[in-house]
Amino acid sequence: MTSESNDLHGMVPDHHDTAVLLIDVINHLDFEGNEELLKIAEKLGKQIASLKEAARKLGIPIVYVNDNFGKWKSDFRNVIENVIEENKPGKPLAKLLLPTEDDYFVLKPKHSAFYCTPLDILLNHLGTETLILAGIAGNICVLFTANDAYMRNYKIIVPKDCIGSNTSAENNAALEQMENILKADIRPVAEIIKDLKRSALRKNSNQEKPDEIIRK
Amino acid sequence: MTSESNDLHGMVPDHHDTAVLLIDVINHLDFEGNEELLKIAEKLGKQIASLKEAARKLGIPIVYVNDNFGKWKSDFRNVIENVIEENKPGKPLAKLLLPTEDDYFVLKPKHSAFYCTPLDILLNHLGTETLILAGIAGNICVLFTANDAYMRNYKIIVPKDCIGSNTSAENNAALEQMENILKADIRPVAEIIKDLKRSALRKNSNQEKPDEIIRK
Amino acid sequence: MTSESNDLHGMVPDHHDTAVLLIDVINHLDFEGNEELLKIAEKLGKQIASLKEAARKLGIPIVYVNDNFGKWKSDFRNVIENVIEENKPGKPLAKLLLPTEDDYFVLKPKHSAFYCTPLDILLNHLGTETLILAGIAGNICVLFTANDAYMRNYKIIVPKDCIGSNTSAENNAALEQMENILKADIRPVAEIIKDLKRSALRKNSNQEKPDEIIRK
Amino acid sequence: MTSESNDLHGMVPDHHDTAVLLIDVINHLDFEGNEELLKIAEKLGKQIASLKEAARKLGIPIVYVNDNFGKWKSDFRNVIENVIEENKPGKPLAKLLLPTEDDYFVLKPKHSAFYCTPLDILLNHLGTETLILAGIAGNICVLFTANDAYMRNYKIIVPKDCIGSNTSAENNAALEQMENILKADIRPVAEIIKDLKRSALRKNSNQEKPDEIIRK
Repeated sequence: MTSESNDLHGMVPDHHDTAVLLIDVINHLDFEGNEELLKIAEKLGKQIASLKEAARKLGIPIVYVNDNFGKWKSDFRNVIENVIEENKPGKPLAKLLLPTEDDYFVLKPKHSAFYCTPLDILLNHLGTETLILAGIAGNICVLFTANDAYMRNYKIIVPKDCIGSNTSAENNAALEQMENILKADIRPVAEIIKDLKRSALRKNSNQEKPDEIIRK
Repeated sequence: MTSESNDLHGMVPDHHDTAVLLIDVINHLDFEGNEELLKIAEKLGKQIASLKEAARKLGIPIVYVNDNFGKWKSDFRNVIENVIEENKPGKPLAKLLLPTEDDYFVLKPKHSAFYCTPLDILLNHLGTETLILAGIAGNICVLFTANDAYMRNYKIIVPKDCIGSNTSAENNAALEQMENILKADIRPVAEIIKDLKRSALRKNSNQEKPDEIIRK
Repeated sequence: MTSESNDLHGMVPDHHDTAVLLIDVINHLDFEGNEELLKIAEKLGKQIASLKEAARKLGIPIVYVNDNFGKWKSDFRNVIENVIEENKPGKPLAKLLLPTEDDYFVLKPKHSAFYCTPLDILLNHLGTETLILAGIAGNICVLFTANDAYMRNYKIIVPKDCIGSNTSAENNAALEQMENILKADIRPVAEIIKDLKRSALRKNSNQEKPDEIIRK
Repeated sequence: MTSESNDLHGMVPDHHDTAVLLIDVINHLDFEGNEELLKIAEKLGKQIASLKEAARKLGIPIVYVNDNFGKWKSDFRNVIENVIEENKPGKPLAKLLLPTEDDYFVLKPKHSAFYCTPLDILLNHLGTETLILAGIAGNICVLFTANDAYMRNYKIIVPKDCIGSNTSAENNAALEQMENILKADIRPVAEIIKDLKRSALRKNSNQEKPDEIIRK
């Protein structure tokens, strides 16, 4: 029925020109050739967690975009339990990035977060213009998602220490492609966070100006 | 990552040339003009339940396609709890049609079950050629979904006693449109079920022939 | 390559909050059950032409959205020649509505103008918020397009004397569906044109105000 | 209207499990950083032409997928005239690859040949399972298209001497990505053509077998 679905009222209470996409961070990580990635998984998880924490404080919405596991049930809770309980190699990463009540979730059936998902509609309601991408694999699902974001005219930020691939060579090739072709900002997460805070300050001070004028 | 998402292996264990779509049956039913619909809700629920039961026995996959409620979380369990616990007018209908472990779920952000959802991919993996549509509202989400199914070349069945709209006039207009333009089979659910059983028998007897020949 | 395709610069020189969609007006009209439609085709063509003329004068972009004929060639000139030269029943309608250099064209492979076409991207670049639909058939391609426009949050206008279907009963049912469910404005074209002119006047006078203030 | 658009009858007379996509070969080639690409443009054009010629002889459909130039008009003839008559750097390449009556054309509004175009529907009607990609730029429109083809489960062939990018480093990185992640066959065009011929011979001899059996 239309009452709620028509305009998605109530579903998307947040509004911000920036959104964070956490791509496949809830992940078994049990695929072939994962050795190098497993070694950096915890560090990667902490860096992504720092991005998430900063975004949360600044009111920037977080959207988990994740593969489904098991039978298709549009049930993200199930996906999380699956990774945690089965004690898969991805458990430590997942535990660093457990979603909370404030987060949005989109299940994706293929590599790109945009392909056959409601992501674009959700971002439209959020007012998103800039996407910050983080997660794995940098040269597959992150890159596919970045390409699709670029075709949809989003500004793209991919903090280079917030994505991981099977090998660092593959990770670097993906970063180069995103920087050169997609015009992505790939500076490290610490610098990105600094910029986000600065921009929030600027917005706040702009919003306060009219009041100040009135007060004087 | 690609290991599972690439081909959706493991996600879609069923295979059948027919699938049942249950559209927005988990529903608050608390919208304006719902009086006539509420009166038939229980009867409608029982008829849809008979369709679901017959399909289940014949190995025909059931796909719930439902609006989300509250914040977008790809969490169908949450949607169900929401309708049941809040004691909304839609509770009796929802209780007749509670999903089980065997069912598939797709959350849709807009009226059509195909728009910005993974439904088409899911049906592809199921091998679906014919869609049986049931649910509410017949002249909105069911009709929008039927149109989109028609453009994607699915054969369409809409048992006339398995869809409901605010008024029976609107319901009939939608059925007429689906029969005339979309070439839908709109016979009552009892006849549809009879056909499904007959077709299953035929398939079984065909599959047994080679064995019989060998045995003799 | 990206230089031009990236942002469609140069392709969409117009900008207006309203656009006119002319749906399948270049049409053989040689299908079964066309007798009633053929009788009104010329009158319909003149009414649509009056809409097109008014829109053109007001700077409102016109987008032809049309089925392809013959082999898929993304070649709308070919489609037009095909209808005109073959002396099909649709020739008089087509001749009343021949496109000019100013018009946009989108070829659609299925019923809805939005399905697997660049229409949504084009409208985005035009800045379209309100769509005026005209053409044939009212209960098929126009209705399918209107549904898809509604899901994409466009405001919809369908002048009731600018669409035609095989029978007037079918046409009226489609209009009723579009008015009731899609909240479409279905007043006759003369009233719609009056509103468009009034709104253009209002915009012009608003734009002149700042200057007037300065001048004084 | 539906008569022809419903199933695309008459539009897609060919049927083959393989199709060739020629991506942006009708191109001004007047973008920044084109020096290295211009030097190889003629050689590239001849290699692509050899692929096209071989495909044509084997009954493999050729689909031009090309950016539009100027105002959006779904008019590929116009695009061709534009490149040829304006004497742009891309003229020699375009002249080597002028389309004929047998070819299909799809205009794309963005980088990927699949995004907001009817390509997937067209390939479905052609019966395509394997796509041979050729054209420019290898690391942009070809790569974006290859990614989207991979998500749609097409088998991918990209003859390494049939794509060009601004620099050979970028071209090689794209080829590596397509070979490793998309499992593309990137052998040179001569080897690909040999395989296509062999496979055609095999099919023909298989089709003749039943006759031979009957004859004996």
